[in-house]
Amino acid sequence: MKLAIASDHAAFALKAELAAWLRDEGHEVSDLGTHGEASVDYPDYGYILADAVARGEAALGVALCGSGIGISIAANRNPAVRCALVSEPLSATLARSHNDANVIALGARLTGIEMAKACIAAFLTTEFLGGRHGGRVDKLSHPPLPAAQSEPTSAGVPA
Amino acid sequence: MKLAIASDHAAFALKAELAAWLRDEGHEVSDLGTHGEASVDYPDYGYILADAVARGEAALGVALCGSGIGISIAANRNPAVRCALVSEPLSATLARSHNDANVIALGARLTGIEMAKACIAAFLTTEFLGGRHGGRVDKLSHPPLPAAQSEPTSAGVPA
Repeated sequence: MKLAIASDHAAFALKAELAAWLRDEGHEVSDLGTHGEASVDYPDYGYILADAVARGEAALGVALCGSGIGISIAANRNPAVRCALVSEPLSATLARSHNDANVIALGARLTGIEMAKACIAAFLTTEFLGGRHGGRVDKLSHPPLPAAQSEPTSAGVPA
Repeated sequence: MKLAIASDHAAFALKAELAAWLRDEGHEVSDLGTHGEASVDYPDYGYILADAVARGEAALGVALCGSGIGISIAANRNPAVRCALVSEPLSATLARSHNDANVIALGARLTGIEMAKACIAAFLTTEFLGGRHGGRVDKLSHPPLPAAQSEPTSAGVPA
């Protein structure tokens, strides 16, 4: 499978270990950085990974930062991405089967290497169930325009 | 504190219990639904909650669905929202201290009531650290325009 992986500095070592493992498992892995332990900003890497998945350059993505929280928020800014932050395999399975998630996020400082591998293995081997879940997933691709980005339609609306 | 809470049907019972507890704790809680156990779509409630937080109608939000995954993806579509899906209090603390998260997501079928309360208690009592985290959080408010929503700038770009 064509996979993409990205992390900030806090998860650089975990990314290297997971990328090597995924290649050993036969996957084609695009490592989108960061490429060292110098401090970087997780949103940059979440956006790069989300773009790669949205463009179809990877079928699925792996997003890593210290807690997984920051990079999962960033990845989910892209309406073509459904990023699930998980810490155990059941959530990774549900992310695929119910939410058709195309990015899995993990926290390098919270989840150990073997648990991370078990989560990713579950993620990569579970199919989306479709059915009643399909309409919900479609709605995730079409979020409402946020109020902050909308044109104002009236002035002086009381808080 | 002014809080908002929302869930799909899978988390309706947990929402009721958490809302009652938060009111007992002295918070003003706006329950944005769902208001029964009939099947609904989690994105609708994620979007409603995100909008309430983005508009400042609530300082912080609580988002619930079966796994927490779907509603956390939906909430994070709004660039003014930083939603952290958690299953234990350390992640809830880091979500506030490092990511200035304003919505906490929990999975009703995966996280029990007392653990959910512990997560929310940690979330509500932790301050954002600012400093180096501030620039990263700012970037979460200004995602790049997704490729799918961009105007094409050139034709025939090879995949």
